[in-house]
Amino acid sequence: MIKKESKFIPAWQNKAPEKRSFRSIFKWGAPDEFKNPSQGFLYIIQQELGLLDSNFKEQQKPGNEQVKDSNEPGISKADIRLFEIIVGKENLFVDTYERLKYSSGKSMEDIFKLRENIIDKISDLVLHPRNKEDIINIIALCNDKKIPVHVYSGGSSVTSGLDCPRGGVTLVMSTHMNKLIGFNEKNQTITVQPGMMGACYEDLLNNAPEKLGTKKRYTGGHFPQSFEYSSVGGWVVTLSSGQASSYYGDAYDLVISQEYVTPSGSFKTHEYPGTATGPKVNDIMKGSEGCFGVLVAVTMKVFLYNPENSKAFTFMFPDFKKAAKAARQISQGEFGMPSILRISDAEETDVAMKMYGLEGSILDKFMKFKNLKHNQRCLLMGKTDGEKFFEKNVAKQVKKICKNNQGLYLTGYPMKKWYKGRFSDPYMRDSLNDFGVLIDTLESSVTWDKIHDLHEQVRSYIKKFPNTICMTHASHFYSQGTNLYFIFITKMQDIDEFRALQHGIIECIETNKGSLSHHHGIGKMMAPWMEKHLGKEQMNVLRSIKDHFDPNGIMNPGGLGL
Amino acid sequence: MIKKESKFIPAWQNKAPEKRSFRSIFKWGAPDEFKNPSQGFLYIIQQELGLLDSNFKEQQKPGNEQVKDSNEPGISKADIRLFEIIVGKENLFVDTYERLKYSSGKSMEDIFKLRENIIDKISDLVLHPRNKEDIINIIALCNDKKIPVHVYSGGSSVTSGLDCPRGGVTLVMSTHMNKLIGFNEKNQTITVQPGMMGACYEDLLNNAPEKLGTKKRYTGGHFPQSFEYSSVGGWVVTLSSGQASSYYGDAYDLVISQEYVTPSGSFKTHEYPGTATGPKVNDIMKGSEGCFGVLVAVTMKVFLYNPENSKAFTFMFPDFKKAAKAARQISQGEFGMPSILRISDAEETDVAMKMYGLEGSILDKFMKFKNLKHNQRCLLMGKTDGEKFFEKNVAKQVKKICKNNQGLYLTGYPMKKWYKGRFSDPYMRDSLNDFGVLIDTLESSVTWDKIHDLHEQVRSYIKKFPNTICMTHASHFYSQGTNLYFIFITKMQDIDEFRALQHGIIECIETNKGSLSHHHGIGKMMAPWMEKHLGKEQMNVLRSIKDHFDPNGIMNPGGLGL
Repeated sequence: MIKKESKFIPAWQNKAPEKRSFRSIFKWGAPDEFKNPSQGFLYIIQQELGLLDSNFKEQQKPGNEQVKDSNEPGISKADIRLFEIIVGKENLFVDTYERLKYSSGKSMEDIFKLRENIIDKISDLVLHPRNKEDIINIIALCNDKKIPVHVYSGGSSVTSGLDCPRGGVTLVMSTHMNKLIGFNEKNQTITVQPGMMGACYEDLLNNAPEKLGTKKRYTGGHFPQSFEYSSVGGWVVTLSSGQASSYYGDAYDLVISQEYVTPSGSFKTHEYPGTATGPKVNDIMKGSEGCFGVLVAVTMKVFLYNPENSKAFTFMFPDFKKAAKAARQISQGEFGMPSILRISDAEETDVAMKMYGLEGSILDKFMKFKNLKHNQRCLLMGKTDGEKFFEKNVAKQVKKICKNNQGLYLTGYPMKKWYKGRFSDPYMRDSLNDFGVLIDTLESSVTWDKIHDLHEQVRSYIKKFPNTICMTHASHFYSQGTNLYFIFITKMQDIDEFRALQHGIIECIETNKGSLSHHHGIGKMMAPWMEKHLGKEQMNVLRSIKDHFDPNGIMNPGGLGL
Repeated sequence: MIKKESKFIPAWQNKAPEKRSFRSIFKWGAPDEFKNPSQGFLYIIQQELGLLDSNFKEQQKPGNEQVKDSNEPGISKADIRLFEIIVGKENLFVDTYERLKYSSGKSMEDIFKLRENIIDKISDLVLHPRNKEDIINIIALCNDKKIPVHVYSGGSSVTSGLDCPRGGVTLVMSTHMNKLIGFNEKNQTITVQPGMMGACYEDLLNNAPEKLGTKKRYTGGHFPQSFEYSSVGGWVVTLSSGQASSYYGDAYDLVISQEYVTPSGSFKTHEYPGTATGPKVNDIMKGSEGCFGVLVAVTMKVFLYNPENSKAFTFMFPDFKKAAKAARQISQGEFGMPSILRISDAEETDVAMKMYGLEGSILDKFMKFKNLKHNQRCLLMGKTDGEKFFEKNVAKQVKKICKNNQGLYLTGYPMKKWYKGRFSDPYMRDSLNDFGVLIDTLESSVTWDKIHDLHEQVRSYIKKFPNTICMTHASHFYSQGTNLYFIFITKMQDIDEFRALQHGIIECIETNKGSLSHHHGIGKMMAPWMEKHLGKEQMNVLRSIKDHFDPNGIMNPGGLGL
């Protein structure tokens, strides 16, 4: 084991993947952007995982191979011809590369398989529909021929949401169906096609006076870590949460109305913000993960864009219980919520201190003086937003609550460091994977009374595996509870070994009263646990809705465990 | 027509109804409480409806007759015996009075029929289940015998929600199933049986330290006008809104988890405040109006009880458009919301000025001096709540926005007057009905861009009827829209004539882009419009869920139009 941070630099692959290579499919984000772990972070990984510099000299299975056009589609030429008539030749692809690309997400298993050049559970045909009419025609044809239908936009699923276990067609929404449909400034709503990507959506809103002719600037308030590479439609159908959800709400809260094409018909829900006309079909469609139909338009709430009112804060607590208590008191304080609020457990805090270059700093010495110890101390950080005086009061109340719970104010600096890297951290995963270091996450909802049980049980399960890092944070807050987000880092060569670890953690979360997911969705990865988690009666409700919309079972087969 | 307010006092029936009389069923609230229109309000009614003092001298159809036990139940003696085995003899009633009582709500039509001694669409058998097990047994028996099941708690439905068009059994939840199940102070949730009445629920929460051993005092934050005579379960299954919904949320927002007994099985939803595990069965059950199953337990959010932070405000605007604009700016201002916010149109404002004794006052003269004219000026009033500095800032921002829109500050006085009568105003309906003066309401959700169209169209429809008062307010606010609440007062003898008026208004609301209901629910009254309003595809979704839970169609037949 190495004893201190060295100046050694691993053989990072800081070049864009070859076109049509396996790597070009699984690499996160922009092909020519990279982010490698800092020396501090690398040092922790080496130390905790027992890895030497030599382990970082040669890449393992970097997936640089070309995807050969070796795989015959399972749809007949005659049927392919029918799809071609619908979308046009230029919007239809049958070659293996395209089919593999649009059947892959960003789960550890997806990446594992691509690095191994395994072509498995892929679509037979990739279509880029141009409009709602194309989708109506595609769904009618698929329903008639009993061909499975999958939907792809950003491809950022970490729950194997894009797998096509029975083949079929994949509709890529981000190519054409990514447009603005309308903006209603009086109602503060925007209507877009589902394939619009997060960054484009936010840019449109921030620059609404110039781009849309509005009086004011707006924000969507939705910033998942995948923000730049996920779509508005994807947020809605998987129940995503943004990093600023504690103030703006989850995607669930932002959806005002949806329009769907399903095998049983097309419809658009009303835009009332509140009604008493029975159970809301708008609700039933949220989180349906493509199992009921295809989302073709969505109307979302927007908010005033006042970044000048934002303020960052960071506090350090003696332990996780005190940090969690402060976060709970903030969430139940009825003075409004910070937009971003995060608490990190001791292990994550120690890593963060290194990543942000704080370890050994004057701040660190001050913390030690204040008896805030390594391996115990915990970060709470965040950001306030909203109207000027509202925001000021939230910041003031947060400070008061943190101080009452022995939180030491650390200025806004660590929060600002985190904020800078908040969308680029996923790039590091590829860099580490290149040397067999796996980094994956599982996350769960939890009520306040169960947070510590769940945290301790899952941590102790993960830490039973030798040489494994487990960092945990809570990052989405409600008066009734929060989420726990577990990041685990370990070295494994074998996909079966990894799967056993992952399944063990999911089982441990479920047994200890966490939900199967707070904001990653179910996909095909969590699907096997759905009936255990919801119970047979509730699964049967979902099945009956599925049967109604999709009597032939063509919509994303296996998704949601349906 | 009378020319000025007289000292004449109508022959109000200020005595408790006879036991087992028709009047004892339809009279609002406590048997020995009464509220008669003030002289000012009576004067407006006389003037607008063209009524003389002589019209108020003799009561018409006061419903003082006894309900005779004349109606044979449509359930066999052998089956009744089976129900008796389940709930016990003391919890089963077959006499006409009890069956009529628990099949009647407070819709104008219900009252009309009771005053006419019409016994129609009533239950065959009234059961007072003691616990969940009783309900499981009742539902199993009813499902087996295909006997319709209805649920009654507060009986305050104004949408014929309690009609039993095919007879069957009615379960009264407020007798035994009205208990506290648990309080979780860490999660800020309370779990109760559905039959707990609003006032009892709020009293429990306000006095939680004494009654539940908690550290703090709480509020449910839910105060519909029916608060004292409606139940927690009723709020949830009909999607009720409280007068303070703009801050606390609608019943829809307050429900954390529900437990149901349905013909297809029993289940309890999880208590996570946010999850991404597919469409939420908790959502599907909200607003189901007893058509899917029987709610047997519900977990609700609670809030800190800080009445000392509350502050009332009132402003007068030159017209409704300016008042609505101010309310919209408040709702979109991102400084938090007042708990209560209300805007009244010109006709309601004029009535309010009389009712609160403001007309002719110094304040009135000041308003006239400020050019705030009769027949044009509009009230905006409300109340702030929440943490002390939050509340102060909301009050400050409300004031600023109102002033920017030419609102004149009128102190908190009119709001306090309204606040005092906020639960007792329904008593006045019985007093007026006694003289053939009908007072009824219809209400709707509306997005901000449609509010004035809807208001003007519905008003002009109602005002086409001669001698009719139409007062309108908006009282529940969201950043994307609000509601409109239409109160119409007219003199009609004939139920068919009244029904034609009511149906015409509903049709007019629906045609002009309002929803069928913002918070009264659908019941059997709105049911015929459901398919037109939601569209066939969405109605079919609800039908498929109904078929899943209730394949024999026994649960509240005809409710929600299912």
